[in-house]
Amino acid sequence: MSVIYQRVAFIGLGLIASSMAHAIRRSGLAVTTTGTARSADTRKVAREIGLVDQVFDTAAETVKGADLVVLCVPMGAMGTVAEEIAPHLEPGATLTDVGSVKQAVIDAVTPFLPQGVHFIPGHPLAGTEHSGPRAGFAELFDNRWCILTPPDGCDSQALARLSRFWRGMGANLDVMDAPHHDLVLAVTSHTPHLIAYTMVGVADDLRRVTDSEVIKYSAAGFRDFTRIAASDPTMWRDVFLTNKDATLEILGRFTEELFALQRAIRQGDGDLLHAYFTRTRAIRRGIIEAGQDTDAPDFGRAKSKG
Amino acid sequence: MSVIYQRVAFIGLGLIASSMAHAIRRSGLAVTTTGTARSADTRKVAREIGLVDQVFDTAAETVKGADLVVLCVPMGAMGTVAEEIAPHLEPGATLTDVGSVKQAVIDAVTPFLPQGVHFIPGHPLAGTEHSGPRAGFAELFDNRWCILTPPDGCDSQALARLSRFWRGMGANLDVMDAPHHDLVLAVTSHTPHLIAYTMVGVADDLRRVTDSEVIKYSAAGFRDFTRIAASDPTMWRDVFLTNKDATLEILGRFTEELFALQRAIRQGDGDLLHAYFTRTRAIRRGIIEAGQDTDAPDFGRAKSKG
Repeated sequence: MSVIYQRVAFIGLGLIASSMAHAIRRSGLAVTTTGTARSADTRKVAREIGLVDQVFDTAAETVKGADLVVLCVPMGAMGTVAEEIAPHLEPGATLTDVGSVKQAVIDAVTPFLPQGVHFIPGHPLAGTEHSGPRAGFAELFDNRWCILTPPDGCDSQALARLSRFWRGMGANLDVMDAPHHDLVLAVTSHTPHLIAYTMVGVADDLRRVTDSEVIKYSAAGFRDFTRIAASDPTMWRDVFLTNKDATLEILGRFTEELFALQRAIRQGDGDLLHAYFTRTRAIRRGIIEAGQDTDAPDFGRAKSKG
Repeated sequence: MSVIYQRVAFIGLGLIASSMAHAIRRSGLAVTTTGTARSADTRKVAREIGLVDQVFDTAAETVKGADLVVLCVPMGAMGTVAEEIAPHLEPGATLTDVGSVKQAVIDAVTPFLPQGVHFIPGHPLAGTEHSGPRAGFAELFDNRWCILTPPDGCDSQALARLSRFWRGMGANLDVMDAPHHDLVLAVTSHTPHLIAYTMVGVADDLRRVTDSEVIKYSAAGFRDFTRIAASDPTMWRDVFLTNKDATLEILGRFTEELFALQRAIRQGDGDLLHAYFTRTRAIRRGIIEAGQDTDAPDFGRAKSKG
């Protein structure tokens, strides 16, 4: 792998930024990396573990001389950060981000964008339920998708370079427009997360079943919900606030379908239930065939005996 | 491990029965195993792979001389099978089952129960999305819970023996009454499955997002839903038809909570969302501490590059 950027600057040093830093080093994609975080504690940890070559206290210092700047802050902070760094961005530099919603980032960042800076929003579809600068690992993006949503008239060389960079970190690349991205993610990510959060909340709240029972018997299905309901609360609050329309649209469809199944249960309509459950099996097979999951039967099984 | 039953008979040879057969052999828990299945094809496969010592064409032959009979058929078939085998059960034998709903099994089986046969309903909380006689493996129950719901006045020696048997197959044992079991499972398993089925159905049905997009981008959360939405349709149809009341109760609570979160999104109430998402994180930690899942960050990651 060869060097793609001279100097990559991270604003925000959580799971995604720290994984990118490791992946860049693994493949030698940049000469230097810099980073900053709003929290002094995060900056301290990043310095201790040598996450990037230089940790700065301000975003302005961090982006100085960088030919790639990556915004890795929660959706709600994108505009503020863009305003802060705008005067310090190098002409010809590429500015990207890793936010889960793309139209909202474009709306927040574009007003501050200086002439000559290439803004190419991005979204790596990878994560774990862990957060912070210690959570990152170089393999996070391997065989995962990264979606770029370049604006009309985007510089094609800048786009090709950023694409090479993501491929160098192990990701598969895709390009689409921001509104379509936001709808696709509302289906595959945002609504499932909201539903998982809700189900876990119901279980927690139900006085007739204790938390310890819920935990003990979680392997029967509930466990898969708790994994995604353990993701970073700030990030997810911002996702729902910024992808409001698409999420509410998919939630509306979900509620409709749920009511239909609920009525089938109430009326004892086994044929409807069986047909529905048979149809959903096919999608699962597609996901395994596409290499986005494993069908190993011991998936998620703890090694130790409790 | 020592022999606990002389002859264990399986009615139904799907994932659970075949895993039990492997686990029995692993630990030498029975002298002989027998089995039957309604489908000739399943019986043929079971004979080919030597799943049990003897495969019979009828349930009557299968249970003859058995001191443990395990009903491993869908919930909807429990009554019919009980009626069929009742005249052939040995006095002093234990009859158990592995159904996901317990009150309905008791209601279906008890009318046919001969004097002197110990009926102790059971439910191993373990599974994969695979079905059939080839799906079983000896480790399925390791460190998983098995819940027994003995009726009032159950013979304590028969209960102790069945408990030893399940522990011998690697499971942790718990005992509770059938209605409480059905409520706990409605929370930890049945409602989550229905919700997962619904979400996968919505994604499949949405014309503006293609199935291939759903599959490609599933790693962002949706994937965890498809795993549980790929379970056996017949089994799950019967679960919802037989645990109707508890499932509808939890679904009602779920819908209430979902509407509250939906309103928070619509109104932009970030504080409510953040507080809710923070609370649900704690349950996840409990599950990992209880050894019912792993927090490995590469959980579910396919090994090969697609």
